[in-house]
Amino acid sequence: MKIGIYGLGRFGRFWGKTLSRDFDVYGFNRSAVDPPPAGITLVSEEELFSCDTVFLAVSISAVETVATRITPFLREGITIADTCSVKVYPARIMEEIFPSYVNILGTHPMFGPDSGRNGIKGLPLVFSPVRGEEEKFDLWREIFLNMELDVIEITPEEHDREAAFTQGITHFIGRVLERLDLKESRIATEGYKALLEIVEQTCNDPLQLFMDLQHYNRHTHEMRTLLSRSIEETMQMLKSADPGGDSF
Amino acid sequence: MKIGIYGLGRFGRFWGKTLSRDFDVYGFNRSAVDPPPAGITLVSEEELFSCDTVFLAVSISAVETVATRITPFLREGITIADTCSVKVYPARIMEEIFPSYVNILGTHPMFGPDSGRNGIKGLPLVFSPVRGEEEKFDLWREIFLNMELDVIEITPEEHDREAAFTQGITHFIGRVLERLDLKESRIATEGYKALLEIVEQTCNDPLQLFMDLQHYNRHTHEMRTLLSRSIEETMQMLKSADPGGDSF
Repeated sequence: MKIGIYGLGRFGRFWGKTLSRDFDVYGFNRSAVDPPPAGITLVSEEELFSCDTVFLAVSISAVETVATRITPFLREGITIADTCSVKVYPARIMEEIFPSYVNILGTHPMFGPDSGRNGIKGLPLVFSPVRGEEEKFDLWREIFLNMELDVIEITPEEHDREAAFTQGITHFIGRVLERLDLKESRIATEGYKALLEIVEQTCNDPLQLFMDLQHYNRHTHEMRTLLSRSIEETMQMLKSADPGGDSF
Repeated sequence: MKIGIYGLGRFGRFWGKTLSRDFDVYGFNRSAVDPPPAGITLVSEEELFSCDTVFLAVSISAVETVATRITPFLREGITIADTCSVKVYPARIMEEIFPSYVNILGTHPMFGPDSGRNGIKGLPLVFSPVRGEEEKFDLWREIFLNMELDVIEITPEEHDREAAFTQGITHFIGRVLERLDLKESRIATEGYKALLEIVEQTCNDPLQLFMDLQHYNRHTHEMRTLLSRSIEETMQMLKSADPGGDSF
C-alpha cells in the first residue's frame, strides 16, 4: 500500500516517518521542503494522489482551500484522511467538496514529535469514519491497532464536544496565563509548577492551532462562556464574603 | 526546648508530630481533639504558653481573635510563630497586639500532611523574622536547616507579592475550573490531566484557605485584575481574528 502525506510541516514529517516503517510513504508540500523529510519520497501534487490513502497534514484553516485544490486529482476509491484537532468542520468540508466516490476518514492523532519522541505505543488516536467503503475503514482500524495505538472510535461530534472541554480549555488557560508572564519561583507549589508546564506546552504549539481550535470547534464557544461565568461567580463569591468590600 | 502548637487541625497535628522527633511538643485546641494527636501532649491554653516557642496553626482569618485571646498568657522572651499562607497580615496583627517583649516570627511551611507524606526533606519553608531577639531567630533558622528544609528567608511583603502569582493564581484557577465539573476523558492530553490534578489538589484544601489567600494578601487583587484583563484580551484576539464574528 502506498501512503501519501499532504503537507510536510512538523506533524506531517513525523507522521510520514512513523508510517514509513511499514509502508511506502510519499509526500508533497506546497512550499520547498528543507531538509528533505526522513522516510518520505517527495513527489508532485498530482502524483501524490496515485497513493491509496492520503493524509492531509495541514492546518484546520487550510482544509477548505486544500480540499478544493486537490479535488481534480482524486480518483475513485481513494481514501482521504484528515488529521485535524477538530473533527466536525473538516468532515463537513470534505463531504461537501469531494466527489461521492472518495472515501473520507477523520483521524486525530493525539500526539506529535514531542509526545511521540519515545514511540507512539499506547498513545491515543481518534478514529472517525465519515463516508465510504467499510473495508477501507476496517483496514485502517487494523493498521492503527497494529501500531499499538489507543484507537478511540467516536463520531466527529462526540470528539469536538469532549475536546472543547479538554484540549480547548487547556489551550485557553495556557494562552491566558502566557500573557501574565509567570516566572519560576523558589516558593512555587507543585500545582504552580504544573501550571507553568501547561503554559509552556500549549504555547509551544503554533498560535494558529490555538486560534483554529477555538474557531472551528463550535463547542469551544460554550466552553468559553461557561469559563467566563465561572470566573465571574468566583469573583462574586469572594466579594460577597467580604463585608467591607475593600479587599477585593 | 519546649514547643507548643496552638490549633490542632490537619496542619497543626502534622507539624507537631514532625517537631516531636527532636523536641517536647505540647498542644492546645479550642474544641475537643479526637483522636489524640500523635507525638503531642495536650495541655490547657494557659499551660501552652510556658513553652519557649508556640506555633499558631490557625486559619488566617482567626489570627486576630487568637492573638487577642492569648495575649494575657504571653511572658517575656517567648517566641510566637505563625504558619499562615500569607505573611504581611499576620505580622501586622501580631505586632499591633502582642507586647514588645514577645518575639514574633513569620513562617510559611509550604507543605502539609499530603506533600510531606514521605518526609519533608528539601521542602520549602518561608522564614520571615518580624520583631525581637536575633538569637531566637538564629536558633530557629538553624533548627529548620537541621531538619533539611529549604529555608527561604524573605520579607512578608516579598512573600505575599510572589505567593499571589504562584499559590494565589493556582488556587484561583483550581476553584474556577472546579465549577465546570471537568471529567476524565479518553482523549485527555497531558496538559489536561495536569489541569485536573490542579483542581483536585487546590480543592482538597478547605474553601476557607482559598478565601483567606485571596482576602488577606493584597497582591491577589492585582493578580485577579491582571487575570481578568488577560482573559478579556484573549477573547478579544479570538474575536478580531474572526471576520464574520459568528463563531466566537
